[in-house]
Formats: sequence, structure tokens, C-alpha cells
Amino acid sequence: MDESLRVIYKIQKEISTLSSIARLLEWDENTNMPSKAVSAKSEQIKLIQKMRRKKLVSTKLYSAMSTLKKKKLSSKDQIVLRELEKSVHKAKKIPKQLMIELSDASVLGLSAWKRARKKNDFKLFERELERIVKLKRKQAKLLNPKLKPYDSLISLYEEGMDSEKLTVIFDELKLGLVKILGKIKDSKKYKVQKSLKVKMTIEDQKLILNEIISDMGINQERVALGVSLHPFTIGISKDDVRITTRYVNPLESFFGAVHEAGHALYSLGLPTEYHDTFVFKSASMGLDESQSLFWENKIAKSEIFWKGFFNKYKSCMKNNISRKEFYEAVNSVKPSFIRVNADEVTYCLHIILRFEIERDLINGSLDVKDVRDEWNRKCKELLGITPKSDNEGVLQDIHWAGGDFGYFPSYAIGAIYSAQIYNTIKKKIPDFYSDVRSQYFEDILSWLRKKIHNKGKTALADDIVKAACGKRLDPKAFITYLEDKYSKIYGF
Amino acid sequence: MDESLRVIYKIQKEISTLSSIARLLEWDENTNMPSKAVSAKSEQIKLIQKMRRKKLVSTKLYSAMSTLKKKKLSSKDQIVLRELEKSVHKAKKIPKQLMIELSDASVLGLSAWKRARKKNDFKLFERELERIVKLKRKQAKLLNPKLKPYDSLISLYEEGMDSEKLTVIFDELKLGLVKILGKIKDSKKYKVQKSLKVKMTIEDQKLILNEIISDMGINQERVALGVSLHPFTIGISKDDVRITTRYVNPLESFFGAVHEAGHALYSLGLPTEYHDTFVFKSASMGLDESQSLFWENKIAKSEIFWKGFFNKYKSCMKNNISRKEFYEAVNSVKPSFIRVNADEVTYCLHIILRFEIERDLINGSLDVKDVRDEWNRKCKELLGITPKSDNEGVLQDIHWAGGDFGYFPSYAIGAIYSAQIYNTIKKKIPDFYSDVRSQYFEDILSWLRKKIHNKGKTALADDIVKAACGKRLDPKAFITYLEDKYSKIYGF
Repeated sequence: MDESLRVIYKIQKEISTLSSIARLLEWDENTNMPSKAVSAKSEQIKLIQKMRRKKLVSTKLYSAMSTLKKKKLSSKDQIVLRELEKSVHKAKKIPKQLMIELSDASVLGLSAWKRARKKNDFKLFERELERIVKLKRKQAKLLNPKLKPYDSLISLYEEGMDSEKLTVIFDELKLGLVKILGKIKDSKKYKVQKSLKVKMTIEDQKLILNEIISDMGINQERVALGVSLHPFTIGISKDDVRITTRYVNPLESFFGAVHEAGHALYSLGLPTEYHDTFVFKSASMGLDESQSLFWENKIAKSEIFWKGFFNKYKSCMKNNISRKEFYEAVNSVKPSFIRVNADEVTYCLHIILRFEIERDLINGSLDVKDVRDEWNRKCKELLGITPKSDNEGVLQDIHWAGGDFGYFPSYAIGAIYSAQIYNTIKKKIPDFYSDVRSQYFEDILSWLRKKIHNKGKTALADDIVKAACGKRLDPKAFITYLEDKYSKIYGF
Repeated sequence: MDESLRVIYKIQKEISTLSSIARLLEWDENTNMPSKAVSAKSEQIKLIQKMRRKKLVSTKLYSAMSTLKKKKLSSKDQIVLRELEKSVHKAKKIPKQLMIELSDASVLGLSAWKRARKKNDFKLFERELERIVKLKRKQAKLLNPKLKPYDSLISLYEEGMDSEKLTVIFDELKLGLVKILGKIKDSKKYKVQKSLKVKMTIEDQKLILNEIISDMGINQERVALGVSLHPFTIGISKDDVRITTRYVNPLESFFGAVHEAGHALYSLGLPTEYHDTFVFKSASMGLDESQSLFWENKIAKSEIFWKGFFNKYKSCMKNNISRKEFYEAVNSVKPSFIRVNADEVTYCLHIILRFEIERDLINGSLDVKDVRDEWNRKCKELLGITPKSDNEGVLQDIHWAGGDFGYFPSYAIGAIYSAQIYNTIKKKIPDFYSDVRSQYFEDILSWLRKKIHNKGKTALADDIVKAACGKRLDPKAFITYLEDKYSKIYGF
């Protein structure tokens, strides 16, 4: 092997191992770690990040990369080099000092956010949010001075996307969602719908949850399941993915586990020939989210799935309820304040609200002091309700306090992609409906593996979706899917 | 602060953080990790060890240490420097190449040991054991060419001890134990004793186990409990200790958890002023083991403890049994083949057997090919029984296969120290018996904290015990304690 190639693969492997350790530390922090260990944990994570950065910006790596740029490379090596360069440049563009400032600001931001939530008062968070916004603008400018600052931040999560494209797409989506929501709210069923509280022992919750994720193709040899306050998935290394859930509400633990298992399948399906390189990751956060939403909403919340699965679920449940009532209850739509509890129809309206606010905030046309009013105004406009307090409005999400700007759009992108994938897959797999009904997911999974998972970061998410489904990000499929599903449930 | 001091504290902190990460990786490997991730995990651990070693042998650290040796230091800094130097010298004396050879030999050793166990044939493990023994001799010579090789290895676990001292002490112990065992075997009760199989749900096992370790002073804010095949305790950082247990046999999960909690209390009581230095650790493996054995055998297996705790335990147990029957059953003595299942009287005989064999093996007076026969001969001599197969004899322990020679004596040292501590503590704490009866452990724990835990590695274990209990390692207290306890149980 060429010496420069050997160098870049060796360093990438070390970086990849350090990253896998950092992710394990993060998983541990959210699952098993005793609460008082929080500062020691942050020392551990900081040290690993420091070592990882040092390797990433090392002269040795840089000069090997420069040598390789003049050489003829295999297409695999070209892709590896391309993704490596992106990461190196990203790291080199942000000086250590700014990284420290960003990290300090997010620590202060999170603690101010917690204080503000305790008092239910956004004012107590404003000063720290101001500082974070300024630093994020600075980071954005350094990353790419040619872009609008918010676009730089979007590209950290969703390479190739920008706010102009997203504004057009989200405007179309908004229109469609508001229209469907209006029809639902006007229906007779909406007026009489009741919420369902499933009763099930924790043991039975574990049983049924393990059954469904195992049907999906989750294998205990490569996936571990933990408990955390907020469910999440984290890929540690090629054969080591961790999913968490919590056992508070049986419906939440079930659909939550399906959601996280969707993420996990993406991790497990990444292209092993690119292991220990920057290509061995999901193409974007939005595409990653499309996988979880596909399994959660398009599969596990579909009528056909419950035709096959309801009797089994019912044997664990202590409620006396028909399949139809159950299916309608798990898909009931109602505007509410809290994003994480939102249904499939209103969820993206929550995201669009955040997208518009953070876009204007980072680009400079909205001031921090006006964010609360803007939130409440948009909430009324999009969802028809006005938060009675900051905790059920502008203070509900942790993202901004931790410095995560530009991430929210990925949730809506995931919802749209998942509908595009659903529309395609049901045409491509002849037995799709009977497969879902009988929890036979092998053909569905192998399609996803081939068309999505196995691409890793060899291409942009939007190009992967175009190749798989025929179109780039396009809200029409999602709107049609929702209209189709909810017109049947609400009878409009 | 003096610049050289600043350097050594800074580097020690980084080494300490890397060590804490390595321990967390080890904990994860044995608790949550999915099985297929084993090679990725070994990459993670190897990388952290490599980085840790690099810092430990760095010129920067070495020259700061050299500068400090010429300066007047506070007594705290002197102690820190002394322990740091030991670790640096240990690392410098073993060349990287030998470290790699040792690590490779232990990987091969472990896999040969597993194969040999499958076939129940020591012969299949002989060649790899031979290689390990040679490398351990080499390591021992490099560590200290003036010592007998086995003594070098002992000092890795039990600084200040050597095989000459231990041979004298263990000979005395052997005599005492064999005598007590003889009396037990001659008693009427021995002939009619039956084993007890406690029936208890896993939920109840968890409940009662959490109650007892919380009474001991284990606090969920600083200690997490996990599940693993073999129970163990690992101190990650100052406020982060992990205990594991398993829920196979209720008595084992209960006493096992008390044992591990004893280790954990030692970790939690280390001197915080020495945090992030090489002084922030237990004084020796034997002293560490004394803490677990004190709580397990001297407290939780005492008659007075069950006078106070039996009714609570009985309410969880599905067996119908009197307190006296229960107490005698959990303390029943019977020679058996497997060390980890042995009772308090025969346990140290298992250790002495291993000590004599590994001493002679490393020092060269015993050949690997004769180890099996020697094992079986000694087993007959000490315990009166002869293994019918290698799996219940020479192949039962993992230690030698992994290269751990010199570690076994610490188990017996712990048993002896724990009796010395027990003898002292019951005199020093006026309400000792009523405290134990009512599971009020605060005074006992604060004595242990003050006299043992809080010393960390500021002194040798034997000096700490001398200061706390008036005598250095001395088997008499242990023999008297056993005679006293078991003469009452077996009526001799």
C-alpha cells in the first residue's frame, strides 16, 4: 500500500476509535453513570475530544492528504479522502479558542436554561442565549464565509441543504399540514376522540418491545438495550449499537423502541468496507431520522401492521379495547404545546416554527428578546393554540441551550424522506402489505440496506434519496400519505 | 505553584482520566457490550493504554520529576512524587515489545485455556502456559533483578510482601485451618448437614440487596449496580463506582452484593486530597479484599446480624426455615473443588495450594508439565479430596491464562486482615453488636474510613494495618475467629 494511504488509514482508525470511545462515554452518561460523576465524565469526554482533534489537525495527516491529492486513487480511496478532507477542514477552520468558548457557553447555557425552566421565565435565559447566538454566528462565518450564517450551520447536519431550499419546501409542507389539520379538526370524530392510556406491566412492555425489534432485525449480538430519561440511539462501533428506552408509558416505550430500532438498523447497515473512515456514517441527520420515522409511523402505526399484531399486543395489555379503537387512538391528532409528544400531523408544524425562528435569529433579522413573542405568535398561527407559559413554549427544548442550531430542520426532512421511501418501497416490494401484516420485515430491510444504509456517506443524502425514490426532498409524498391515512381515520 | 509541580499534577490528571476511561471500557465489556463488539472493544482499550503509557514515560514528566527531587517539598507532594515514580519506573522497565508479547500471550493463553476446558484436558493448555510463565519470569527480572522472580510479581499486587514472609504465614494458617476443618468433619452436625437452596423472585432479590447495601452506606448518587457473569467492583472515578451482581442464586446475589459493596466503600473512602494521583487507590489488593471479606463474612454472615435481619429476609424468601437453620446453612463448611464456591474455612486452603504452585513455577522449581499432578496431590493433602477432572482442578481459574501470577495470595491476605480488623473494631466500637444487629453501620464505616480507606496509598498496606490493629499480617486473629465461630456452629 502507498505510504501516504497507509498513514491516512492508520490515523483515521485512531480517530475512529477515539470517537467510538467518546460515544460510549456519552451513552454511559445517559444510562448507567451515577449522578455525582457528571464532572469526571465531562473531563473524560473533553480529554478524548482533545486527543481526537489533535490527530485530526496533525501535520502528518495533512501532508499525507496533500501528497495523495496529486496521485491517482481508486474510487474508494477518493471517497475516503474527500470525506476526510471535509472533517479536517471543519476542524482546522474553528480555532481551539472558539471551541472552548462554544463549549463553555453551552455549559452556561444549559444551566441558565434549567434555571429559567424552574422559574418558567424565558427572560432568565436570554443573556446566555444571546452569547450562544453570537458565537454560533462566528462559527458559521468561519466555516464558510460565503454562506449565510444559518446555512453554514444547517450543512453541519444536512450537507447540501440551505435555508432557501428549505423555506420553499417547508412553506409547501406548512400549507398542506394546516389544511389537513383543519379537516381533522372539523370532523365529527375529532370532537369525541378520547386519549388512550394503555395499562401493561413493565415485564410485558419489555417482552413485546423485544419481540418487535427482533422482528425488525435487531440482534442482541450487535445491539444492547438500556434505560434512559430520553430515549436515544448511538452507534458505538461496527458491531455495537446501543438503544435506550424508558418504561413510563407503554405506548411510548413500544413506539419509542421501534423508532430507535429504525436508527439502529441504519447504523448496523453502514458499508463495512468503509469502516474506520469518515464515510462510515449516515449521510445526514435527516436521512437518519427518516429511518426511525419510517419504522415508527409508516410501519408500526399503520392499520395493516395492527391487523397482524393486535392480538399479541392485546394479550399483554390490561385494557379492553377493539383493534379499530386502538389503531385510531395511537394515531389520534390534536394540536398540543410539546413537540416530543406531538402526533404525526402536527409534529412538522412544531419544527417549522423552530426553523423559522432560528433561521432569523442566526441570520440577524430576529432579536433574542423577541423570540418568546415570535414563538407564541407562530404557535397560534400554525397550531391554533397559544402557550400559557414559557415552559410549554419557547423553553421546552434543550437544543438552543446546548448550542445546537441548524439541527431542527432534520426532523422534518426525515419525515418527508420517510414518506418518499414508504411510497417507493410499497411499490417495489410486491408483498409489502402481507409482509407488514405478518411482521416479516426481511425484504423491506434488505431494500433499505441496499438503497440507503449501505451507501453510508458515499453520497449526499438528497442524492441517495433521488437514486432510491426518483425524487429529491419533496413534501408532496408526505402530504398525500397523511391525507390518505387520516381521511380514513377521521372520515373527511 | 512550582512549574515542575504543575507539570506533574497536570500529567497525572490526564493519566488518571485515561485510566478512568480504561476502567469504564472494562466495566462496559463485562456488563452492557453486545457480544460481537469484543474486538472493537479491545481496540479501544489498547489505544487508551497506549496513550496512557506514552504520557507515563514521557521526557516532560521525567524531567519535571528529576527537578522536583532536588527541591524541598510538602509532605503531600513528597508522597505523590514517590508513588508517581514507582509507576513511571514500572512502566519504563518493561519495554513496549515485552508488553506486546505479554498481551499477545495472554490472548492466546485465554483461548487455549477455553479450548482445554472444553476438552477438560490440561495438556491442551500446557504449551501456552509455558510461554506465559517464561514471559512473566522475564518481566519479573526486569522489574527488579535483585528479587526472586515470584517476589517481583507479588509486589505488583502486594507491595512490601514477599514469598518468604508469606510462606511462614501461610504455613501457620494452613496448620490452623486443617485442624479446624478436621474438628468440623469429626462433628455430628457435619454428617447430617444439608445444603440450602433459597427460593426468591428476582424482584425480591433486588429489593433486599438494595436495602442491605444502602444500609452499608452505598448511595446511588455515587454507585451504579450492573449485571455481569462474574460479580466485580470497579472504581471509575472519585464519585463513580460500579458494582455488578448476578441473579442466579439468591444467597449468592445477596452475599455477593455485600462483598462487592465492601470493595466499593473502600473506593468511595479514598483520600480526595490525592485525587488524580497514584496515591488515590487502595494500598494493596489484599487490603482491598479485606474490606469485602469483612462485610461479607464478619458482618453479613454473623449470627448477630441475622438476629436483626432474618425476619425481613424471610418475608422475601419462599422457604420455611428457622433463623438458626438459616444461619448454620449459610455458614456450612465442606471441602469442595471449586475455589469460588468455597466456604470461609476451606477458602484459604484453595489459595495456599495456588500460592505454592505458582511460587515454585515462577521461581523455576516446578515444571508446567508437573502442575496438574502437583495440584491434585496438594488438593488431597489440604482438602482431603482429589479432583476427578482437570476442570474441577487445575483448569478452574482464569488467572494464569491471563498472565496473573502473584495475585492469588492477596485473597488469603485479605481474609487474614479482615479478621484482624474485625477483632479490633469490635473492641473499639462499644455498641458493635447492637449496631450490627440493627444494621446501623455508620460508626463501623467511619472507623474503616478513618483507619483504612482514607489512607489510600500513602503507606504500605501492612503498615496501615499495623497502625489500625496493632499488628502486621498475622494469621492468629483469623484462626481464633474461625475456631470461635465454627465451634459454636458445629459444637466442638
